[in-house]
Amino acid sequence: MLVQEGYDALSVDAVAERAGVHRTTVYRRWRDVGGLLADVLDAAGSDAWRPPDTGTLEGDLVAVNAELEAGLTDQPVTAALIAASFRSPEAAAALQRFWDDRYTRCAVVVARAVARGEVPEGTCARRVLVAATAPVYQRILLMRDRSDPLLAEQAARGVALAAAHGVFVGGQQE
Amino acid sequence: MLVQEGYDALSVDAVAERAGVHRTTVYRRWRDVGGLLADVLDAAGSDAWRPPDTGTLEGDLVAVNAELEAGLTDQPVTAALIAASFRSPEAAAALQRFWDDRYTRCAVVVARAVARGEVPEGTCARRVLVAATAPVYQRILLMRDRSDPLLAEQAARGVALAAAHGVFVGGQQE
Repeated sequence: MLVQEGYDALSVDAVAERAGVHRTTVYRRWRDVGGLLADVLDAAGSDAWRPPDTGTLEGDLVAVNAELEAGLTDQPVTAALIAASFRSPEAAAALQRFWDDRYTRCAVVVARAVARGEVPEGTCARRVLVAATAPVYQRILLMRDRSDPLLAEQAARGVALAAAHGVFVGGQQE
Repeated sequence: MLVQEGYDALSVDAVAERAGVHRTTVYRRWRDVGGLLADVLDAAGSDAWRPPDTGTLEGDLVAVNAELEAGLTDQPVTAALIAASFRSPEAAAALQRFWDDRYTRCAVVVARAVARGEVPEGTCARRVLVAATAPVYQRILLMRDRSDPLLAEQAARGVALAAAHGVFVGGQQE
């Protein structure tokens, strides 16, 4: 419903009708649409997702970005949930938890690169991962531009190269 | 009003009252709030802004990101307009025009780097600029996280280094 009709059509009553339950059932469980979307995001974060392990930081980041690009392009619910986070503080907080969880799980990609000697000790995993993935979010979600298939790959390769040169050392965040 | 009270409070009537004009004046000129916000964005794009010229690509990208971070942090209207673009297709289209204009004006930063021999011919200016700036948008607008002052600078330095290594060559966009 969020994808098809947008946030404004997503009333508790409409959700209850579509689900074939009484509206009080939805109200009791979620109070409002923001709470419901927050639960959707929290559920998305409780999967068993693990980052790729290709043997190099560059390979891992390219694979992460390819997965992210496909997800944002093929699953409009992701983009719709992010748009909804601008409407509901509860959904926004859930989205922060979701990103925090994903970036934390992804940190092993950088830890392995440090262990292999690809990037220096003290490299900030969070910053490497945000720098690599942000161009995909920026292009698809904010600029609403799907016309450049090279961006995800080149951004990932660029960040891997920069990390190898020690650009992301300092002020480690995790 | 957009910053203080949000998009939902921004009716044509409320805008007219705040401006001290008759509501038909606002209706005649803008039809609805989306059209009004689109004009605000188009007006923001008609300024005389030029990118910095520090003498190196790294210096220019670091300066662009510092300006962007300060703008997004200190001027909540920018973030509010971007949030509004998720509500109004007209505002979204105006935001695309704004970004397109800013990235086009910024392309000279890469052209100068090519002319100086810092980065190879065929480097895609748009992709360099999106890769450098996206982490700032991602962190402040999407992740709503202001806790890492190093990201803007390191992301800019990383992209400049990667561009010098030819990472952004191919499929030139402008």
